[in-house]
Amino acid sequence: MQAQTLKGFRDFLPKQAKKRQYVIEALKKVFELYGFEPLETPSLEYEEILLGKYGDEGDKLMYRFEDLGKRKVAMRYDQTVPLARVVSQYQNDLTFPFKRYQIQPVWRAENTQKGRFREFLQCDADIVGSSSPLADAEVITVAAKGIQELGFSKFTIFINDRKNFSYFQSAFTLSNDEVSAIIRSIDKLKKIGRDGVIEELAQRMGNEQAREIVDSFSNIKPTEETITLLNVLVENGISQENIQFYPPLARGLEYYTSTIFEIEIDGYSAGSVCGGGRYDNLIGMFANKQIPAVGFAFGFDRLVEAVEQNNLFPQTLRVTKVLVTIFSPKHKVQAIEISSFLRSNNISTDVYLDENAPLDKQLKYANQKDIPFVVIFGPEEQKKQIVTIRNMQTRQQKQLPREKLLREIS
Amino acid sequence: MQAQTLKGFRDFLPKQAKKRQYVIEALKKVFELYGFEPLETPSLEYEEILLGKYGDEGDKLMYRFEDLGKRKVAMRYDQTVPLARVVSQYQNDLTFPFKRYQIQPVWRAENTQKGRFREFLQCDADIVGSSSPLADAEVITVAAKGIQELGFSKFTIFINDRKNFSYFQSAFTLSNDEVSAIIRSIDKLKKIGRDGVIEELAQRMGNEQAREIVDSFSNIKPTEETITLLNVLVENGISQENIQFYPPLARGLEYYTSTIFEIEIDGYSAGSVCGGGRYDNLIGMFANKQIPAVGFAFGFDRLVEAVEQNNLFPQTLRVTKVLVTIFSPKHKVQAIEISSFLRSNNISTDVYLDENAPLDKQLKYANQKDIPFVVIFGPEEQKKQIVTIRNMQTRQQKQLPREKLLREIS
Repeated sequence: MQAQTLKGFRDFLPKQAKKRQYVIEALKKVFELYGFEPLETPSLEYEEILLGKYGDEGDKLMYRFEDLGKRKVAMRYDQTVPLARVVSQYQNDLTFPFKRYQIQPVWRAENTQKGRFREFLQCDADIVGSSSPLADAEVITVAAKGIQELGFSKFTIFINDRKNFSYFQSAFTLSNDEVSAIIRSIDKLKKIGRDGVIEELAQRMGNEQAREIVDSFSNIKPTEETITLLNVLVENGISQENIQFYPPLARGLEYYTSTIFEIEIDGYSAGSVCGGGRYDNLIGMFANKQIPAVGFAFGFDRLVEAVEQNNLFPQTLRVTKVLVTIFSPKHKVQAIEISSFLRSNNISTDVYLDENAPLDKQLKYANQKDIPFVVIFGPEEQKKQIVTIRNMQTRQQKQLPREKLLREIS
Repeated sequence: MQAQTLKGFRDFLPKQAKKRQYVIEALKKVFELYGFEPLETPSLEYEEILLGKYGDEGDKLMYRFEDLGKRKVAMRYDQTVPLARVVSQYQNDLTFPFKRYQIQPVWRAENTQKGRFREFLQCDADIVGSSSPLADAEVITVAAKGIQELGFSKFTIFINDRKNFSYFQSAFTLSNDEVSAIIRSIDKLKKIGRDGVIEELAQRMGNEQAREIVDSFSNIKPTEETITLLNVLVENGISQENIQFYPPLARGLEYYTSTIFEIEIDGYSAGSVCGGGRYDNLIGMFANKQIPAVGFAFGFDRLVEAVEQNNLFPQTLRVTKVLVTIFSPKHKVQAIEISSFLRSNNISTDVYLDENAPLDKQLKYANQKDIPFVVIFGPEEQKKQIVTIRNMQTRQQKQLPREKLLREIS
């Protein structure tokens, strides 16, 4: 039997798992600073809860099966439909506006050749039950602050209002389908360029009209709601330099109703690291009434990659700070004492777990685990009533009284 | 379509989700203090990796299905078999002893009438690659410190050595099956009592021998390894009062090879909150060699329940500390400014997301969300250049200059 993982599924070994935890903690901190609270929903739902909510593509890529009780079940595909279910199921227990964040894996049977994963973490924050532009501004602020918390200062929040697209509908007398086509095509403007978009649209509405439409994007002015939103963003402490009204921003998803936004990090070319907007007709689907909502999702894997590429992971991300070696079986008790002393002072400590191992094997362990300090206590140290501390980076050793260990390490 | 969850699956609304996060953070802190590092494995594995590893019962309760690529897949059933796969798959990349913790959900189609869940969080810590009793002592220490970190001081670590059971094999010339039966029955000593155990065993080996065996448990003395272990535990700073050598401790699982332990919290009657031991023949199953290992799992749901029952969740577990109200649309900008000021001072703050809502509606929101402080800025405050702060618990209001807000809140 071969030890292997399924295509599109990943193990995260400690080094990578720590990086992911760091990003999660940073984002959680910002979510909670803005009064967002955690929500968890099950990995499995009744199939009928999820089916038909993500278009044909979603139904196709969803992990679905029959459980032992012959129930048709499906694995979490996103965190928005479960949120809609929760809002309906507990509407009398929740406080509205309901501000929740949710960080859980989702599963999609994606084509892995495109570099996509079949299990990946989603990281969402949404406000349910407020139609105020203050809510739109708050989610965008939280997204921007999250990115700042990770150490990025150069990023752009592209903002638009879906309602702007109805301008074309009246100006050019287009069908709903044609407007949808415009939304889908113009979204690729950065990727395929002006000519590419015109070419795509020309197949539907003729070359001339396609060109007129694409070029008229530059004339679009922000709606009154967008202007209010942009003002509140600045009042919220977001710098003008990080904000751009961008009329061709479309975001493919059908369900957005007004504000839409995306955030790109300067120099990170894989695409936007965050996207969201207002979707007032989705959350009420199980409650049979309209419930306004606005929110966003971070692209978690991209965010981790961008932090990595920009060297923004802290040096101190290593877990273990000190390895206490065991010089010989006779020195075991003192080694344990020293490690207990360090741990009781909140210093993450390993004691080498073999009293018979030669010292160089123990040093190699510290090296491999990226532990910066090694404490040695042998016959010489015992005689002098001191400890030796070795800095693994400089390879320098120092002898000092045990009570000075803490200062040396911090 | 009814908004409902599957039997045995749970939503965690913010109040409960925060409690769970608190327990997770406390345990992670202790794991990392002792040099354990995080590991994550996928939710889905090739079925053949998991099948046959948990006995007939496991194969029956496992969530299994065929994916879109006709691969037979299974959902994570525990975290030990995936650990064994990881150790084999990355043996050249990992540093041994490999000390990892893992906190992920597992899925089992349990009978929910017994109050069991079908999706629940496992919380494991293991040391792979060390056969030293120092490793046994370390995992037990970490488990005990985790329980202490949550605020418990009265708990008992029951310790035994599986090898003690071979004493019966030679003393009474029993078959392996009969020894297994003893292990299974004596494990229930606390639940069904001496007579119950004798009755169960009598069906296999006659009444007299059953009684002799059960009564001879009190004569069993700790093995030399157990004595070493008990000494190191005390050197590690675990109090004698929390440790008990308990020969009838058996732990049902077949795979333990020597040290076994369980921790019970005084006054918490649902059962042990932690269990583990040494299992030297399991982790090597994919690597085709013997790899010693020792570790444990917390019963996460029980732990959360015990913390709840003992009122050990901190009062400050609420996320949001302040609600800044919006007195009227004219006061919106100042409300935003005050909330930005508080947030930039790391105070978790909500600003009410409707500039037209009456004040009592805003106060009700604070009450429901359990927010302890409310800030009010209206015409009077504007004139006097102050803010009003309301303590939601005492219902007292105070007027003060804005710069004194921080001190008032902390």
